[in-house]
Amino acid sequence: MSDSASGGDQRPLGVFDSGLGGLTVVHALREALPNESIIYLGDTARVPYGTRSPSTVIRYARACARVLVERKVKALIVACNTVSAVAVEVLRAELDMPVIGVVAPGALAAVRAAEEVADRTGGPPPKIGVLGTAGTIASGAYSREVQKLSTRLEVVGQAAPLLVPLVEEGWLEGEVPELAVRRYIEALLNAGAGVVVLGCTHYPLLRPVVEKVLIELVGHPIPVVDSALAAGEAVCGLLQDGGIPAASRLDLSGATIQLLVTDQPVGFQRSADLFLGEHTPTVEQIDLGAG
Amino acid sequence: MSDSASGGDQRPLGVFDSGLGGLTVVHALREALPNESIIYLGDTARVPYGTRSPSTVIRYARACARVLVERKVKALIVACNTVSAVAVEVLRAELDMPVIGVVAPGALAAVRAAEEVADRTGGPPPKIGVLGTAGTIASGAYSREVQKLSTRLEVVGQAAPLLVPLVEEGWLEGEVPELAVRRYIEALLNAGAGVVVLGCTHYPLLRPVVEKVLIELVGHPIPVVDSALAAGEAVCGLLQDGGIPAASRLDLSGATIQLLVTDQPVGFQRSADLFLGEHTPTVEQIDLGAG
Repeated sequence: MSDSASGGDQRPLGVFDSGLGGLTVVHALREALPNESIIYLGDTARVPYGTRSPSTVIRYARACARVLVERKVKALIVACNTVSAVAVEVLRAELDMPVIGVVAPGALAAVRAAEEVADRTGGPPPKIGVLGTAGTIASGAYSREVQKLSTRLEVVGQAAPLLVPLVEEGWLEGEVPELAVRRYIEALLNAGAGVVVLGCTHYPLLRPVVEKVLIELVGHPIPVVDSALAAGEAVCGLLQDGGIPAASRLDLSGATIQLLVTDQPVGFQRSADLFLGEHTPTVEQIDLGAG
Repeated sequence: MSDSASGGDQRPLGVFDSGLGGLTVVHALREALPNESIIYLGDTARVPYGTRSPSTVIRYARACARVLVERKVKALIVACNTVSAVAVEVLRAELDMPVIGVVAPGALAAVRAAEEVADRTGGPPPKIGVLGTAGTIASGAYSREVQKLSTRLEVVGQAAPLLVPLVEEGWLEGEVPELAVRRYIEALLNAGAGVVVLGCTHYPLLRPVVEKVLIELVGHPIPVVDSALAAGEAVCGLLQDGGIPAASRLDLSGATIQLLVTDQPVGFQRSADLFLGEHTPTVEQIDLGAG
């Protein structure tokens, strides 16, 4: 399927998530890699994964990956922190293609941010505070990834189960999101955090609230790391290193986006446009079977 | 399996829900029917159902019902508003036993409350305001059930997606739940509601907040109907009418509760005790298969 004769591999990138949140990763990929075609699978019939056990998440992740492999993707991007936290290693061992999650890139960006704070202040680096779903936080995945990069950095985690429904309701400003975000951020600051990781692909839509609350509580901005953005950058590097980027096209409309969902796509379009930041093409409903 | 020779039918009641919320119905059943044994199935691997399409919910409901039928229950109680809203008629047509949901009993209790307000004030009955998940509200099920009982009563619905995560986090008092509840209640009051139905089995745990907010906004209490309580009363009537109550026992410890879940029961115990209002016996994990 590789198209190296023409100087590029035109096969699409496969991206999957438990629902819509991963479209913030697709948005980051579109900005960074406008030549790449993308097939996105949102397992909307079983969203959210954030409250499920690791064995259930791994089972669901295998079913999603199978669909994308059958559609001949050249690399798999796990655009969900919950799945990245528990299933990336499993998928990498089982699949014959590059597999990249959002946790490792998010952890790398957080380590850089903490080291920059240390360089600037001349003091020790601050702790890295991670906001995520219950599943992501319980997994300890950010701690493990950060420990691989630096033994002097510490991670504190805070499950933030209200933030996904706030985003899905479109309550992105005002008292309720501010108070909810404030509780979670206060817990991180009390635990010593000086960098905040948005460790769920829904959270970038609440970034303005997070930044506002941080300034109110700390008195000055502190670094906020977006795992969706970090993953987009990591995929750029991966494609260059692996020699599998698509050839650059004069006409970018040749780079297509295909959206697959597992539940009826009712109401999907409006939310998808919000997450993706551009109008969503036609959505196809598929069946994952026994899964 | 009926045990009518000894004057009672000792087979258990089967209760199912997408997760833990239905345990508020079990709590109501325990109060009303202390002689009855109960098997409860919480489909915790696929919770919540509230955001899923009707065809997906019906598929999941059939899988849950199958497990309980195999365990020889004498009646099926659908302890979930989302499932009751779309799947009770289907299950009733397919199963050879009484099937009762929470929507019809909740609607009946709401109609009674609205008529009582009309009798007391001498004016027209107020509109019935329903708080529920997106799925329950979109289904229009409360409207349909109310219309069967009274053509002069009107229903207004409000999806309240933040309330389930608030309850599951145990945020049952303070500013965040009050502001979230206030937004939803304000929408109902603006639409003319004078009775409020807690149309999700999680919501009874927020009843004190709902009542507080109603007094703040209206200046006096207005009726709050709990669909879980209403369902408990309806099951009492059903068992009497059908002649299938369990024989009264001198030793109530003979009436057992069995809990089945579909995801790992980690963290289940603590939440289950909160919902059930008593200590939960051992929890068994089962597999619903392809479902």
